[in-house]
Amino acid sequence: MGPPMRYQLYYWPGIQGRGEYVRLALEEAGADYADVARSGHGMAAMMKMMEGNSSPPPFAPPFLKAGKLVIGQTANILLYLGARHGLAPKAEAGRLWVHQLQLTIADFVTEVHDTHHPIGVSLYYEDQRAPAKKRTEEFWKDRVPKYLDYFERLLERSGGSYITGRRLTYVDLSLFQLVEGLRYAFPKRMKAFERNIPGLVDLHDRVANRPNIKSYIESDRRIAFNEDGIFRHYRELDI
Amino acid sequence: MGPPMRYQLYYWPGIQGRGEYVRLALEEAGADYADVARSGHGMAAMMKMMEGNSSPPPFAPPFLKAGKLVIGQTANILLYLGARHGLAPKAEAGRLWVHQLQLTIADFVTEVHDTHHPIGVSLYYEDQRAPAKKRTEEFWKDRVPKYLDYFERLLERSGGSYITGRRLTYVDLSLFQLVEGLRYAFPKRMKAFERNIPGLVDLHDRVANRPNIKSYIESDRRIAFNEDGIFRHYRELDI
Repeated sequence: MGPPMRYQLYYWPGIQGRGEYVRLALEEAGADYADVARSGHGMAAMMKMMEGNSSPPPFAPPFLKAGKLVIGQTANILLYLGARHGLAPKAEAGRLWVHQLQLTIADFVTEVHDTHHPIGVSLYYEDQRAPAKKRTEEFWKDRVPKYLDYFERLLERSGGSYITGRRLTYVDLSLFQLVEGLRYAFPKRMKAFERNIPGLVDLHDRVANRPNIKSYIESDRRIAFNEDGIFRHYRELDI
Repeated sequence: MGPPMRYQLYYWPGIQGRGEYVRLALEEAGADYADVARSGHGMAAMMKMMEGNSSPPPFAPPFLKAGKLVIGQTANILLYLGARHGLAPKAEAGRLWVHQLQLTIADFVTEVHDTHHPIGVSLYYEDQRAPAKKRTEEFWKDRVPKYLDYFERLLERSGGSYITGRRLTYVDLSLFQLVEGLRYAFPKRMKAFERNIPGLVDLHDRVANRPNIKSYIESDRRIAFNEDGIFRHYRELDI
């Protein structure tokens, strides 16, 4: 192996979005990376990659350039980084298991997004407020309990502080982000719900206090939550 | 390696659903498998696995038992099977690339599902017909063109008959299923749209004529499309 690689992360510059799961892994690993679209001509560079004139284009950001590889899809990027930075088990069974959990998190993230965009991504939230309200009700009645209770149960049986046991994986970082995001988007609903998931709340705090994550969160590399991202705070959806 | 493994696929017995992407890979590979929940006490066995008393439970079907491994999430199962049955490139770059494409297909499948269930999976279609109509409009205006044109462009530049070139991968099988499903659910809309995707239509036909796929489609192992699955035909959504 040569010197450590400098990764290039391509993602929309103004939001945490799906890029954040990758940023958290890179930060925890202490990896060297550029958040390309946030600097200089970065957006133009990202759009050029997506035209795919030289190599086959990814469907959408985030994607990661790692040497000659261009890897798209959040969970796929984490599969790659996990193996290289000790953020996933080495053996096949463990590697597939944490990837499976990350894909379940990805499904949940899509459902979070659809609370404010149940009809279509190309429409404004303001044009789908009534269905958003209904979808959010269903989301908190059925989906949040289903997903978060599942992860809570896994934590209970893990035999350690993290989802697979005593060692942190990228899944723990993503679960931290889910708790953060739900607290931002739905502070009242989440406050009431947290009594059901003491293990996930503990996990969140444990991740927040890891030195690399702590200094990342306090830095300006961490973009603040906002209403262009996936976790959005609309007061009428949080009642 | 010992004798060929007998896989156990766990999926809801009455629908193609997400299990179908796994079935197509197993059938193309000529693998030995049981479609557990479709026989005898299979449903009870599946529910027991999901309680996870012995091993950590998957979040949802489909999942595949392969020896001691229990692998969940459709794309993750295909990642595993692809490597073992020559349905994916062996080198890391190619392996990650086809997995990335499969994850993009998974995103599209979720959007297909949400055309008839934009408000919530626990509600009946009949209780969300108006938003379903709007979401379906957006789906055909923006999302179908975005996804299918993307795959069409990849096919054009692949330099072969399949998405990665001259060799079939599990992604080609899944693209076949997308064309089949859209034809079933939206025959009028799809008929009009197919002129934009001649490469995907050719690919569909090529996959349909592969001997193992052909005999699978003609067998009673292939469940017919129906209105409990992901691709559903509701006449009012196909105008």
